[in-house]
Amino acid sequence: MFRSDPAFDTGSVIVCDWPLCQVRLQDDTRFPWLILIPRRAGMHELEDLSSADRAVLMEEIVRAGEVVRELGEAAFRPVQKLNVGAIGNVTAQLHVHVVGRRHDDGLWPDPVWGRGAARPYGPALQAAVSRVGLSPAG
Amino acid sequence: MFRSDPAFDTGSVIVCDWPLCQVRLQDDTRFPWLILIPRRAGMHELEDLSSADRAVLMEEIVRAGEVVRELGEAAFRPVQKLNVGAIGNVTAQLHVHVVGRRHDDGLWPDPVWGRGAARPYGPALQAAVSRVGLSPAG
Repeated sequence: MFRSDPAFDTGSVIVCDWPLCQVRLQDDTRFPWLILIPRRAGMHELEDLSSADRAVLMEEIVRAGEVVRELGEAAFRPVQKLNVGAIGNVTAQLHVHVVGRRHDDGLWPDPVWGRGAARPYGPALQAAVSRVGLSPAG
Repeated sequence: MFRSDPAFDTGSVIVCDWPLCQVRLQDDTRFPWLILIPRRAGMHELEDLSSADRAVLMEEIVRAGEVVRELGEAAFRPVQKLNVGAIGNVTAQLHVHVVGRRHDDGLWPDPVWGRGAARPYGPALQAAVSRVGLSPAG
């Protein structure tokens, strides 16, 4: 049975389920940042998914990119580049990061993973979660 | 017309073409590491590709993972985790990194991008290129 690793609860919150993935918002105002976790048990690598699931995952990555762009627009910081990563060195359960980047985002051009400290949304978190869940792309 | 950005020639070499992507070997013996560049002109984000091309890309990512695992085995350093990233902050042309990681690889658990200096293959480069081109997965 699918269950997201409790490690994801430190740093991100569940927004909703898409056909394949659990959608999470990274609790970090530095970047509009979603995490997609395929809702299949025991997955670690893309190769563990069926080919059909992988095709769905790819489309959900694109959809997550649209949502990330909407989050950036809403914060008056339009996304200039999407960064997509399936890494899993720290939390092994298969998941994909979709992160909106800007040339002035403080870490550019480095990747975001493992760099700097998150700046949590605080009281604004629920509004951000709602925005993701209600976005046309979402 | 498709042409890979000359920036890729610093640090990687062309191995072959797959149905969608130009396959390149990163010239860095620290990690078995392929780069896939979809052979379509003017691509920057996954969303720029057609949905059909994206499905092919996903399968070529998995195939690249198999080749990366074979490179790791050949070097007696079996891959323990695959890292996949579509970043493009430095070179904007759409490309996907597929990198084989080990717990003892010196950068673990950090991502590899933008960290440390490459260790080129030197005279062993052509043999590595041939291995990628001839591998069953390749």
